Amino acid sequence: MMNIAPARDTTSHLSAQELGNIDLYWRAANYLTVGQIYLLDNPLLRKPLKIEHVKPRLLGHWGTSPGLSFTYAHLNRVIRTMDANMIYVCGPGHGGPAMVANTYLEGSYSARYPGILRNEDGMRKLFRQFSFPGGIPSHAAPDVPGSIHEGGELGYSLSHAFGAAFDNPDLIVACVVGDGEAETGPLATAWHSNKFLNPQRDGAVLPILHLNGYKIANPTILARIPKEELRSLFVGYGYEPIFVEGDIPVLMHQLMASAMDEAMQKIRAIQENARHDYDAYAARPTWPMIILRSPKGWTGPKEVDGLKTEGFWRSHQLPLSGLADNPKHLKLLEDWLHSYRPEELFDAKGAPVAAITATTPQGARRMGCNPHANGGLLRTMLKMPDLASHSVEVLEPGTVKAESTKVMGAFLRDVMTANVDTRNFRIVGPDETASNRLQNVFEVTDRTWMASILPEDTNLGHNGRVMEILSEHTCQGWLEGYLLTGRHGFFSCYEAFVHIVDSMFNQHAKWLDTSRDIPWRQPIASLNYLLTSHVWHQDHNGFSHQDPGFIDVALNKKADIVRVYLPPDANTLLCTTEHVLQTWDRINIIVAGKPPLWQWLTLEQAKIHCREGLGVWHWASTENGGEPDVVMACAGDVPTLETLAAVSILKEHMPELNVRVVNVVDLMSLQPKERHPHGLSDAAFDAVFTDSKPVIFAYHGYPWTIHRLTYRRTNHDNFHVRGYNEEGTTTTAFDMTVLNELDRYHLVLSVIDKVPAARASGAKLAEMMKAKLLEHHDYIRAHGEDMPEILNWKWHSNASGEVG
Amino acid sequence: MMNIAPARDTTSHLSAQELGNIDLYWRAANYLTVGQIYLLDNPLLRKPLKIEHVKPRLLGHWGTSPGLSFTYAHLNRVIRTMDANMIYVCGPGHGGPAMVANTYLEGSYSARYPGILRNEDGMRKLFRQFSFPGGIPSHAAPDVPGSIHEGGELGYSLSHAFGAAFDNPDLIVACVVGDGEAETGPLATAWHSNKFLNPQRDGAVLPILHLNGYKIANPTILARIPKEELRSLFVGYGYEPIFVEGDIPVLMHQLMASAMDEAMQKIRAIQENARHDYDAYAARPTWPMIILRSPKGWTGPKEVDGLKTEGFWRSHQLPLSGLADNPKHLKLLEDWLHSYRPEELFDAKGAPVAAITATTPQGARRMGCNPHANGGLLRTMLKMPDLASHSVEVLEPGTVKAESTKVMGAFLRDVMTANVDTRNFRIVGPDETASNRLQNVFEVTDRTWMASILPEDTNLGHNGRVMEILSEHTCQGWLEGYLLTGRHGFFSCYEAFVHIVDSMFNQHAKWLDTSRDIPWRQPIASLNYLLTSHVWHQDHNGFSHQDPGFIDVALNKKADIVRVYLPPDANTLLCTTEHVLQTWDRINIIVAGKPPLWQWLTLEQAKIHCREGLGVWHWASTENGGEPDVVMACAGDVPTLETLAAVSILKEHMPELNVRVVNVVDLMSLQPKERHPHGLSDAAFDAVFTDSKPVIFAYHGYPWTIHRLTYRRTNHDNFHVRGYNEEGTTTTAFDMTVLNELDRYHLVLSVIDKVPAARASGAKLAEMMKAKLLEHHDYIRAHGEDMPEILNWKWHSNASGEVG
Repeated sequence: MMNIAPARDTTSHLSAQELGNIDLYWRAANYLTVGQIYLLDNPLLRKPLKIEHVKPRLLGHWGTSPGLSFTYAHLNRVIRTMDANMIYVCGPGHGGPAMVANTYLEGSYSARYPGILRNEDGMRKLFRQFSFPGGIPSHAAPDVPGSIHEGGELGYSLSHAFGAAFDNPDLIVACVVGDGEAETGPLATAWHSNKFLNPQRDGAVLPILHLNGYKIANPTILARIPKEELRSLFVGYGYEPIFVEGDIPVLMHQLMASAMDEAMQKIRAIQENARHDYDAYAARPTWPMIILRSPKGWTGPKEVDGLKTEGFWRSHQLPLSGLADNPKHLKLLEDWLHSYRPEELFDAKGAPVAAITATTPQGARRMGCNPHANGGLLRTMLKMPDLASHSVEVLEPGTVKAESTKVMGAFLRDVMTANVDTRNFRIVGPDETASNRLQNVFEVTDRTWMASILPEDTNLGHNGRVMEILSEHTCQGWLEGYLLTGRHGFFSCYEAFVHIVDSMFNQHAKWLDTSRDIPWRQPIASLNYLLTSHVWHQDHNGFSHQDPGFIDVALNKKADIVRVYLPPDANTLLCTTEHVLQTWDRINIIVAGKPPLWQWLTLEQAKIHCREGLGVWHWASTENGGEPDVVMACAGDVPTLETLAAVSILKEHMPELNVRVVNVVDLMSLQPKERHPHGLSDAAFDAVFTDSKPVIFAYHGYPWTIHRLTYRRTNHDNFHVRGYNEEGTTTTAFDMTVLNELDRYHLVLSVIDKVPAARASGAKLAEMMKAKLLEHHDYIRAHGEDMPEILNWKWHSNASGEVG
Repeated sequence: MMNIAPARDTTSHLSAQELGNIDLYWRAANYLTVGQIYLLDNPLLRKPLKIEHVKPRLLGHWGTSPGLSFTYAHLNRVIRTMDANMIYVCGPGHGGPAMVANTYLEGSYSARYPGILRNEDGMRKLFRQFSFPGGIPSHAAPDVPGSIHEGGELGYSLSHAFGAAFDNPDLIVACVVGDGEAETGPLATAWHSNKFLNPQRDGAVLPILHLNGYKIANPTILARIPKEELRSLFVGYGYEPIFVEGDIPVLMHQLMASAMDEAMQKIRAIQENARHDYDAYAARPTWPMIILRSPKGWTGPKEVDGLKTEGFWRSHQLPLSGLADNPKHLKLLEDWLHSYRPEELFDAKGAPVAAITATTPQGARRMGCNPHANGGLLRTMLKMPDLASHSVEVLEPGTVKAESTKVMGAFLRDVMTANVDTRNFRIVGPDETASNRLQNVFEVTDRTWMASILPEDTNLGHNGRVMEILSEHTCQGWLEGYLLTGRHGFFSCYEAFVHIVDSMFNQHAKWLDTSRDIPWRQPIASLNYLLTSHVWHQDHNGFSHQDPGFIDVALNKKADIVRVYLPPDANTLLCTTEHVLQTWDRINIIVAGKPPLWQWLTLEQAKIHCREGLGVWHWASTENGGEPDVVMACAGDVPTLETLAAVSILKEHMPELNVRVVNVVDLMSLQPKERHPHGLSDAAFDAVFTDSKPVIFAYHGYPWTIHRLTYRRTNHDNFHVRGYNEEGTTTTAFDMTVLNELDRYHLVLSVIDKVPAARASGAKLAEMMKAKLLEHHDYIRAHGEDMPEILNWKWHSNASGEVG
């Protein structure tokens, strides 16, 4: 497989001097990589290598690094020769030491970390900190200049790269995809992102598939299929692959330089064409890509203990280990380091020689200093439309119905319009923008689509700003890439299926958490989710589409990163939407349903309610002064509806009962103040929830979530939470609440059971509620829809009003 | 795009009679599908259609159904003509009504549901139950005979199909992949499963990519790229695509019949070759696949309200709606139903006519009755090797170290050997079997690999039973398919990255939950996870690889489906492994680390401990009779180590303190008995955890998980839980515990803080602990590894032993 003769006549693309310099650079990068993995001291190897110069715990991944540095060197060349504006997305996350080495060589590392200069002392610190307690991790984590992609978890490099390229017409995103990562599902579908990239308006992505052949202990699929099959695969994905294959450095430099120039010329030609010739632009171009086949652990030890190492999986992590007990390996390490001839690479002080620095770009053209890779630098606040013009007029609570997400859709349409000039706002979602009732956005923009368009198609266009692909992974990856490069966006998703991106959420939350502590990283716009078509509204889909557990995944992350909002109606949803679009470095989760539901708050009331996070709804309560007999708490649109319906039954049948209605819109407000910045103080919490009265809490999700948030509160022992208990099927929203005992009748039964003042007089009402439940059960199975009194239920602020 | 003339000479493949019958069958299936979506009554349309015959809530998905039934009809033909053993995996989950219609026509539906016979009354019930409260959902859910794949969440059909085919040499799994689903990541990489299918030993998968062109409101990518690009993509994936394109039924029947015969002949030829000719078998074959391009909503209304409907996304769900207010639509529905000429399809009693039943296979050859699709029927218990021979000898607690997962690996090797003849056990994992220290399995089997093999490769082979692909989705999908067809398996995964399959876990848990209530579904083997390389052992990888939250996702599912085990040492891990491999209809999660750690229990002690789920470790406690001063509880290997280290410090410095050590191996035992079958009664719980003493609980995962499980227990207010708080980086396991305040020093400080008897005399010890923490902080940053007293720490059962 190796030692393949170059197929093209590309042996003299670089002059001898260019070739020499680029190889010097590459040797230096490799030397610095090995140094980071192994050395504590003696960084320039000016003394014989001793065991005390070697780290006691050896950690790190060599295998992928030389290929990454080889690519970096050649990207540097085209940046210089073409004055390209380029960033580098490093899919093989374990190539962290290589990315550090390259940014150190070009000077961006020292620019970010003035304590680590390009001299012997700086090099010692550079080596020491790697995978060292208190130091830096082994991935292209947020601390690495120029990184927007950590890559610890594999699969998202390419969708991140495309996200970065959208609306950045001058940017070229080089994206190295490892052949291990290429086996993941998210990466396998991300190749189709080329059907969404508009060469007129967007930048370019240059994918570099790096076939180094092995994962930890295994060959990779793409490295072990015939070359023609491989080519066919990428032609099928819509690319033109340029192959660079071999293992002899001088030949490979010529091949890579030629391939890079070819790819860059093709990209420029596509863009020129698209930007000056409408017909060309109307067709989706075939973008170039590079397939780089080079040995794993290239330039490392060829054999260790008689076993093949270079070009094999044994190079994945540490080709040499156990050095303290193995002087032979220590010697091999010394030989390996000397093979790069450090004395030719660094001057007396330990700085890279001029021939090396001559090969790197300058200033912000250095990939470690490109502002797109520190997107907060470029972020501008979104212009926000007037909220009032979108509000639902609510003269009395419960007198008008609205589809919350549709109201939000009109607001998002106007956000789109207000920011059309800056081209920094997009909506992503898996084919559900209209299904989720955000269709008003299509009045001002289309769905992005670069594949073929038929006359009957609606809302499809090359310039669309709504991105729909039936891959939650790709939606999330695009949006992350877009945000990380300084723009804004919104992800609308079916609630149950956002679990598909649990792990991507985790990684992004960790990225934000780490970034906040890195002084030079500027804040980026928050990642905003609308979770709709939620657990209570699955008439069509049933059990498999019912899962409100994403909130629980989110709550496991650092408190200050995450916000969870459960707006009970359209005006609170509007206020929440306006708010989250103006926040940064957070992940905001909004859960709201789409069918027409009763509206409760005016816009002004909604603003106050959202600001406070939770509050007593006095207009719904029947407090006759003093402490209430019971607190009816609710969070979520359907639980709010059922709570108010239960309260109206209580008003009718137990007018003497003092009921306090509390609605929670910001779930984080339930947490202790010390746990979360939105958390209420204990005193404020107790003032709302009392210190001893029963609290019947109707919650949107799994009930224990509320217990988890409140277990340290004074009155927690009296919290009785109803929520989703994994009882579900294809049925009405109301029947779903009955199955999970969150409906009005069960809530009234809970009050009778838990509230002493109600228990005494509640026997008759309890019988009535049980009868209602039976009646409902029979009715819905006979008629296929809810009883008229459910369908026609209305809130009556007057306690004497008719109640079903 | 439509009305494409057939490219091949395939106009007379079927005789006129065959053609007529197959079309009759297809019309009947379509009629029954429309009937399910729309009709409450008048099932045979023998009276004029009135609004009272129509369901009040219209739900369901028409668009994909005619293509699914078309495929079903043609699969039936090849089953009959070739006596094929075949099951049908229906990727487009919303095709539920089509799958019900087809199994009804072939008689398997009535065989499973004797109340729904093939007559007018049965048809009425069949129609009524669909998407009706108390009825059946709209997907190919567990209630559908012949289904092993619900498909509500898209992406997993193909990996399920391959999982079903492994080790089933006679089985052919037809798998319809929708072009919406094809956009998902998991599906996009599942095509590569052909590099793992051995034609000698395994069955075949016949993928049928169904391009009907549209998702909910959008075209699909694969339907909108040039045909040559599409062909190239699948050639690149390693298939030979056979195209069936058009919209004229008589032409399409001929085309499809010819394509099916061609595909089946190719499959048979590949298998013949592989099974009789070693050289052919050594090469990976190019399997056939069918690409079916047919209109969305084929045979439905062509236009509705002047808008294109057949062959467009408007057919996705309901082409007609609002019938009560729209007599025109009611008339359109009646015309549509009549277009299938029901009077030709069903006899006077409403049974399908003989010409239709003649086209279906008989008995267990019917896809709705194939036992492989009700895998529990075929499941045999695994033969288990002798546990004792694998146990670690523990003469005294804490006197010997072992790598838990390595011990488990040797046991799994022997499970492999014991069941080699029945070929019903496989291990899956994303390239981590060896990295997770299960390498002993390679003494008896290889990694499955059908791509090219080089001389230097190790443990790779065509007959391997370890399945490694760097796609957690594919691992999970393969294993689910394998289990659902009656076999056994094991998934070893990095703990953090199992979140990648959160949503697949959810769907499988829901499938099991539903299946348990379906009398004819036989129990299948449990899905067993080993989560290792866990949060506390990420020296190499750091923060991005630290997430113990999968347990929280799992706990949201129905209690009886899920088990979570945290074995503290190798012998408890062995007992747990033996147990879970003999369970059914569950998901078992085992969390265990791989580095060498101290061992605590003998095999006999481990057996008792695992049976009880949790228990007092008397040998570690210092109870001098009566109630303890403090309960030191622990769950997980690293928390157990730190707890015992803290106890040894307390023994040394506070010998008078009564400390009770409790270890929890089965997390579910903490739950109330009413919540979980493994839950302890309150009395038993209080006997262990006391009703009033401080409990310092060191837990493997997020601390609130313990609160969530115990908030109703008597002594909950005194539970102080330490766990992972999202503080992490690349450092030692011990430093990780320090960062999260779960280490021995913080635990001792907690005791001093929370235990009155310790607080009084604890000032000096507290100072010592704080000094140790500072010393640790400085030492690890200076030396890069832990202090000798940490590295060399040993448990001393004698309280006077030396303690660091």
